[in-house]
Amino acid sequence: MKVGILGYGNLGRGIESAVRQNPDMELAAFFTRRDPSSLKTQTPSVPVYSVNDIEAHKDEIDLLILCGGSATDLPKQTPEYAKYFNVIDSFDTHARIPEHFANVDKAAKESGHVALISCGWDPGMFSLNRLYANCILPEGNDYTFWGKGVSQGHSDAIRRVEGVKDGKQYTIPVDSALEAVRAGKNPELTTRQKHTRECFVVAEEGADLNKIEQDIKTMPNYFSDYDTTVHFISEEELKANHSGIPHGGFVFRTGVTGLNKENKHVIEYSLKLDSNPEFTASVICAFGRAVVRMAKEGMTGCKTVFDVAPAYLSPLSADEIRAHLL
Amino acid sequence: MKVGILGYGNLGRGIESAVRQNPDMELAAFFTRRDPSSLKTQTPSVPVYSVNDIEAHKDEIDLLILCGGSATDLPKQTPEYAKYFNVIDSFDTHARIPEHFANVDKAAKESGHVALISCGWDPGMFSLNRLYANCILPEGNDYTFWGKGVSQGHSDAIRRVEGVKDGKQYTIPVDSALEAVRAGKNPELTTRQKHTRECFVVAEEGADLNKIEQDIKTMPNYFSDYDTTVHFISEEELKANHSGIPHGGFVFRTGVTGLNKENKHVIEYSLKLDSNPEFTASVICAFGRAVVRMAKEGMTGCKTVFDVAPAYLSPLSADEIRAHLL
Repeated sequence: MKVGILGYGNLGRGIESAVRQNPDMELAAFFTRRDPSSLKTQTPSVPVYSVNDIEAHKDEIDLLILCGGSATDLPKQTPEYAKYFNVIDSFDTHARIPEHFANVDKAAKESGHVALISCGWDPGMFSLNRLYANCILPEGNDYTFWGKGVSQGHSDAIRRVEGVKDGKQYTIPVDSALEAVRAGKNPELTTRQKHTRECFVVAEEGADLNKIEQDIKTMPNYFSDYDTTVHFISEEELKANHSGIPHGGFVFRTGVTGLNKENKHVIEYSLKLDSNPEFTASVICAFGRAVVRMAKEGMTGCKTVFDVAPAYLSPLSADEIRAHLL
Repeated sequence: MKVGILGYGNLGRGIESAVRQNPDMELAAFFTRRDPSSLKTQTPSVPVYSVNDIEAHKDEIDLLILCGGSATDLPKQTPEYAKYFNVIDSFDTHARIPEHFANVDKAAKESGHVALISCGWDPGMFSLNRLYANCILPEGNDYTFWGKGVSQGHSDAIRRVEGVKDGKQYTIPVDSALEAVRAGKNPELTTRQKHTRECFVVAEEGADLNKIEQDIKTMPNYFSDYDTTVHFISEEELKANHSGIPHGGFVFRTGVTGLNKENKHVIEYSLKLDSNPEFTASVICAFGRAVVRMAKEGMTGCKTVFDVAPAYLSPLSADEIRAHLL
């Protein structure tokens, strides 16, 4: 299947690399809003086109992967390009998913394409695990923890503090909270009890470090509800030790069964990822395969990970997956 | 949806209890090979019929749940009753799944029913996690660990040893092996390095305890490839501390991404279950809901967990699951 990538940031580069791990996929084109001649990819054999010319390539692409941001790019791009292509995106603004779904569904149904939105790990694999576990244990509690990993939003917030030159923020789940959930104790956890925040900050020369630390720790929405640690380090140290984009997390469902609800069960799903964008890209490629297959079977409209029978994700035949993975 | 249960052992009782946790399901009938008047269920308001009369009830049941064993019951029952009902089973003889699938598929297609085989947690939820994780990380390694939990097969094997009155066997994953996998070390593990076996044995009066211990530890297939511990306890102690049927386990996929495969990822799914049959029953009820829905949409034939879009499992609408679980 021929894959097009729109947008060449961290996620676009992750897709570029993930496609190479899937022999049934072939990278056919990059599309960019920049001047195409200025875009230097890691796959120079694949042409780079202006997004303005994208419609001309609609018969050359089985799947267009949208690698833009959820704030402003995807709400416009996904419905727009679902007119010409089967598409997949990683839209992750939870509160706006119903609206995005409706817009994309309309465009995809009118044009006869399949569009899959909100793919990745959260939303994505975490959502799937919440759904499966809720259906299996109707009486129970859900817990999601994120980390240890880099939060781009919180790192950006640090960098906006006066006197800060650069910085990275790690979200860290609290071990004792994880253990209480894992032990089936069904704790009620406040925001502060679930996660801590650790910041690595490069200050500008002569800046007031105490003030920076206070400004970070008291920042509403981002840090004030958490126990936050601030470390001042050199620019070299930040580059050497904190340039990766690791992430991960845990989804739990704890519940009871039995005539007297006497038996407890714990379902746990966890991810430990060296590269958040590359893992997200890997999930998108698997579901992208499903999109193309579903479109070939004549399905149309907007889908989510909930609508995809897992067999569609695999390059193996149904016989093979039953024999080897069931 | 009206549910029938065929077979009233541990799994049948688990279904009886799980149905009560699913308000859209109603228990409509028990079917038994015994004399129906001899079967005392926990739900006396629900009629008990002889399996010989089952065909007469084919229009009263939306889903027949087959609660027999994989060795001799299900290979016959599932294809037989797929002639009259939508059915679901927990067939778990991995090597015979392709043959069982073919038999059930033929019967279900000819009669226009949906049949789902090999449902539960392994096969079942563990299989799903193997499939998802393999599709996401095409280059990597799979690990499955079972336990801590009671193995019925190994407990039966103990009870066949001369001088043994009763016994229970626990399969226990080796912590250091779990940790090595979780750390992404991709260890090559022998059978002995993955699991230990712990036996609690009630000896007959005057029996040779040393001989029993040696007979267990050297038993081929069951124990000789493992580090096994044997504890002799009283009948009262066995009853007091070892009459539960806990189980669980871990499914891992570790893999790499990146242009130079420089980033490692660990996907882990684990279950900790107080009651193996009740959890299996809970999984079966969720997939049973999907079977009835798929049949209503006109699908026919044999399915596995791989063929079920997750949305079919939930009593909530597609809008609700997108809004609350994605």
